Amino acid sequence: MHSFKELSAKFEQQFSQRQFPEHPANLYDPAQYILGIGGKRIRPVLCLLGNELFADLEPDAFHAANAVELFHNFTLIHDDIMDKAPLRRGMPTVHTKYSDSAAILAGDVMLIHSYEHLNKIAGKYRQKIVSVFNRAAREVCEGQQLDMDMEQTAPEQVKYEDYVNMIALKTSVLLAASLQMGAICGGGSEGNQQHLYEFGKNVGIAFQIQDDYLDAFGDPDKFGKQQGGDILVNKKTFLLLKALELCNGTQRQKLHELLQTSPADKVASVLQIFRDCRVDAWAEKEKERFSQIAYEHLDAIAVISGRKQPLRELADFLLVRQH
Amino acid sequence: MHSFKELSAKFEQQFSQRQFPEHPANLYDPAQYILGIGGKRIRPVLCLLGNELFADLEPDAFHAANAVELFHNFTLIHDDIMDKAPLRRGMPTVHTKYSDSAAILAGDVMLIHSYEHLNKIAGKYRQKIVSVFNRAAREVCEGQQLDMDMEQTAPEQVKYEDYVNMIALKTSVLLAASLQMGAICGGGSEGNQQHLYEFGKNVGIAFQIQDDYLDAFGDPDKFGKQQGGDILVNKKTFLLLKALELCNGTQRQKLHELLQTSPADKVASVLQIFRDCRVDAWAEKEKERFSQIAYEHLDAIAVISGRKQPLRELADFLLVRQH
Repeated sequence: MHSFKELSAKFEQQFSQRQFPEHPANLYDPAQYILGIGGKRIRPVLCLLGNELFADLEPDAFHAANAVELFHNFTLIHDDIMDKAPLRRGMPTVHTKYSDSAAILAGDVMLIHSYEHLNKIAGKYRQKIVSVFNRAAREVCEGQQLDMDMEQTAPEQVKYEDYVNMIALKTSVLLAASLQMGAICGGGSEGNQQHLYEFGKNVGIAFQIQDDYLDAFGDPDKFGKQQGGDILVNKKTFLLLKALELCNGTQRQKLHELLQTSPADKVASVLQIFRDCRVDAWAEKEKERFSQIAYEHLDAIAVISGRKQPLRELADFLLVRQH
Repeated sequence: MHSFKELSAKFEQQFSQRQFPEHPANLYDPAQYILGIGGKRIRPVLCLLGNELFADLEPDAFHAANAVELFHNFTLIHDDIMDKAPLRRGMPTVHTKYSDSAAILAGDVMLIHSYEHLNKIAGKYRQKIVSVFNRAAREVCEGQQLDMDMEQTAPEQVKYEDYVNMIALKTSVLLAASLQMGAICGGGSEGNQQHLYEFGKNVGIAFQIQDDYLDAFGDPDKFGKQQGGDILVNKKTFLLLKALELCNGTQRQKLHELLQTSPADKVASVLQIFRDCRVDAWAEKEKERFSQIAYEHLDAIAVISGRKQPLRELADFLLVRQH
């Protein structure tokens, strides 16, 4: 068994080799570029952790891990085009550095390459792993579409449960599927796979709630981001949507005005309303609720407790971050 | 054994059912839309023909055929964005009718769905079929990139063999792979698969040369397209590239001027130069050369001649078209 850090190094060692042919350079250089600007490689390492929960590391888990990381980067390239994002990890996005056409095509070929990695998996597990991968891949596309649909909707019109569903599809199902794909490589039973999937999915949702909370209430020195960045751009977050539900008529009116007019004291004023309607306390509880579900699923996996230690530590690290 | 027409009806019967979920509608409606505006379904029928060359139709051949047709339509959606094409088969393109973002994402989810069809294929043949599919898919992306690269290059700078290679990747390898995937489903040997692949690839190239020839010299009444459409938009074609190679200094100078200035008699003047440097006769010979290679590979397939009849008829139909 290995720690997250050790598995991360093992993954990077083989993944950092060039993934694509040299030619045509205008197709493969953009694909290689996004892999080169980093990322925490959380999904592929989850895949390896999922394997080690049940058995020694299999080469198949690396094939699955490579597929998942390529898939994730493909979605980043295409999402950045749709969102017209200029920067990713502090560097120019692929469509900014190259062109929209190059970014579309580079994303496409990365998706195809991810299936090439999956096709190397041993016959015994391949069909099931591809099926888990395909479902997550479809759901990530659905999540991105639902997110774009919500962009066009006034925040007052977005239902909280629809928002949770969108976040789960867009960000959590791939984490969950990565763990499950690893579990399949490790020979985990169907029941254990499901518990592991739900663990990953709920950690993902809890993490997103925490991320929204920290953006609003975190210490910028520790958190490393501008406080209230989401508020400044009117981003729909767990906090905003719930605040609109919890607040009284006067607060709602004031919040609505702040969203429309963006005055100089926008962040402070919105935060005051958030505090007044106690959405800060609600967010801590809601994060705790999803964390709880996640840990219950982890507990329910039928392997000895020691094997779960790296996953428990990862969840503790992700969800009890200092702020 | 069935004719092309019969297989076409069999394919359409199952493919015309809705391929995607209803929701999110903004994701799946664009995908369903492009399938609804027709197309000749040549690739999936090639898949079924490839199967019937060796054995009775297998359900697996339909899974492969569905994958190939979804893949082809995915490439059409993304290519139309890159080419900024307003129309496809006389109807608004997906990005025109919906949006660029919707078209990117609908294409992505179609590609994922094509792998879902492949994942239904029986274990015995699945890995090999996915491998053939993946190679063709990568090559189609490479062909599209090479085409965009050539768009940025003066026609005098494009080498003839590079152009043939680009056309083969962009249009012929998927025809070839469709036949080969079918052959695998039918239990064809590796050697026979290769002959069938080369047959498809060379028919594809010959067809493209004929298409370029007919655009310039075909009877518009019979061909159904405006004569010289390619010439009007300075499209790089087999004829133009070869003419630039065959013609003398004066003709090259004149051709260069015509490409730059687009006078009212552009089509007639370019056609005159094409005739003067005998590129029309060359094109007929070149088409014949690739056709010949195709038929030789068909002849070399080790099955009784009668089984090859539908493929021979299809090639005859595609390549000896009246003009």
